[in-house]
Amino acid sequence: MRIVVALGGNALLKRGEPLSAENQRRNMRAAADALALACKGHEIVIVHGNGPQVGLLALEANAYKALPPYPLDVLGAESQGMIGYVVAQELRNASPERPTAALITQTIVDGSDPAFQRPTKPIGPVYTSEEVASLREQHSWTYAQDGKSFRRVVPSPQPVEIVELPIIDSLVRSGVLVICAGGGGIPVRRNPDGRISGVEAVIDKDLAAALLAEKLGADQLAILTDVDAVYLDWGTPQQKAIGKIKSLDLRRHGFAEGSMGPKVSAACNFAERTGRAAVIGSLSAVQSVLSGKGGTIVLP
Amino acid sequence: MRIVVALGGNALLKRGEPLSAENQRRNMRAAADALALACKGHEIVIVHGNGPQVGLLALEANAYKALPPYPLDVLGAESQGMIGYVVAQELRNASPERPTAALITQTIVDGSDPAFQRPTKPIGPVYTSEEVASLREQHSWTYAQDGKSFRRVVPSPQPVEIVELPIIDSLVRSGVLVICAGGGGIPVRRNPDGRISGVEAVIDKDLAAALLAEKLGADQLAILTDVDAVYLDWGTPQQKAIGKIKSLDLRRHGFAEGSMGPKVSAACNFAERTGRAAVIGSLSAVQSVLSGKGGTIVLP
Repeated sequence: MRIVVALGGNALLKRGEPLSAENQRRNMRAAADALALACKGHEIVIVHGNGPQVGLLALEANAYKALPPYPLDVLGAESQGMIGYVVAQELRNASPERPTAALITQTIVDGSDPAFQRPTKPIGPVYTSEEVASLREQHSWTYAQDGKSFRRVVPSPQPVEIVELPIIDSLVRSGVLVICAGGGGIPVRRNPDGRISGVEAVIDKDLAAALLAEKLGADQLAILTDVDAVYLDWGTPQQKAIGKIKSLDLRRHGFAEGSMGPKVSAACNFAERTGRAAVIGSLSAVQSVLSGKGGTIVLP
Repeated sequence: MRIVVALGGNALLKRGEPLSAENQRRNMRAAADALALACKGHEIVIVHGNGPQVGLLALEANAYKALPPYPLDVLGAESQGMIGYVVAQELRNASPERPTAALITQTIVDGSDPAFQRPTKPIGPVYTSEEVASLREQHSWTYAQDGKSFRRVVPSPQPVEIVELPIIDSLVRSGVLVICAGGGGIPVRRNPDGRISGVEAVIDKDLAAALLAEKLGADQLAILTDVDAVYLDWGTPQQKAIGKIKSLDLRRHGFAEGSMGPKVSAACNFAERTGRAAVIGSLSAVQSVLSGKGGTIVLP
């Protein structure tokens, strides 16, 4: 089987943990054995998130005052290097006989996507209202409130095309485990003269993974996160895990924009456009999710 | 011909320029057309430097006080993402029909390399003595003096093995222009249990390019920099450009450790180990350097 795996941020960082290099390394190492085992015998493409990391890189770049801040496309590229390295190294250590490559990947978006007018994608650390007040004095960033806490939000346009698609296809065909389109891919647009150039955005990695899975002709899209399934009435006494569901039925329910929403959209996109199933489940149960025994299976 | 091109830091940054994203983008864009044209019809692997960038990332990470500083292997990986992205995008824009890939690359070094006891590789910006005095209060970094200015120096062990070599070989064989081993590759070592893990170092990109060229069976190693040739008595009234020279003769002369020294060692290594010629010349004359009409040609 050819499987595109969207690897949730929790593979590198548990909720509430500081974004240290050591924490990310330890979490990825803990996940690598089971992930490598579940990937065995399949053609595998892994797409990882970068929300916390790209936000941190922006904070770091802004804390160093000697230079103008780097744009989000360049910071996204840095995050692909950092995360791709850790994921590739730990997967290789878990499965040394499997060739593993992390590829810098650009994703084309539409420069007139309405998302540029309405930032929704949370990046960087979680802030208190006092921290946000202090940050507002330094940057003209936008923040979204979640309960008592805040996060910076940036535009998250729809992925339209993966620039390196033919290279990814050829690598995965030859048995290489490919880590690519990290953080949804570096956001770029195609200019009227045909050149591509970076834009200030962060693409949703689940939507990019769905696009990649569709264009690669993948048999399955597997979205791994820190919950074991998609739930109806999440966070209420009535919450109920969904086993199998048709995409049109799943789309009728509402899900949180910054978390389960894009995963559900991505799974439905893949199922509807390809006629094949997508699955959303827990990284800690990767073996059963990839083999169709766990998680929420989204059918066309 | 299969050619490994070592791309000097000047492709992204001219001497004395601030390390802004915009400056690096503009310089790479200016170099891309001639570079892409010179690469046409050849199997090409490009290895870029990362000295200024990895030092900047360390400064940025250290300026943001909420987290412990990231180790140099992770910062090296970030720099591969950032630079690989800019180089790949500009080369693709210059030559859209050529598939181009930037690959995160790990380079194995010997954990007992004596270089770990003697830091020599300059990274980051150039400092005045006042700036160094202030930095000494913040970090336990090592500095080297060059005239009146200073730079941070870090260990630069010899590259021993490129982890992703088979993947690079297969990509370049299929016509992909491959950007890899950026900054000499992310420095890692092989542990007694066979696992690989990062080390605190920055590998010389010219030495890594020579190793890669040897292992890939390249026909030529081309080291592109901001001078048109290797000079004897550089900086004196007697300075004299070298046209062709045997590696053993070239090795008898002394060259500056942080600049021409590693380029000369890399060219000599390649010539001696493969019996084929290496060339050191100017990026701005890339066409004549790659075709054997310019630069210093180092013969076995």
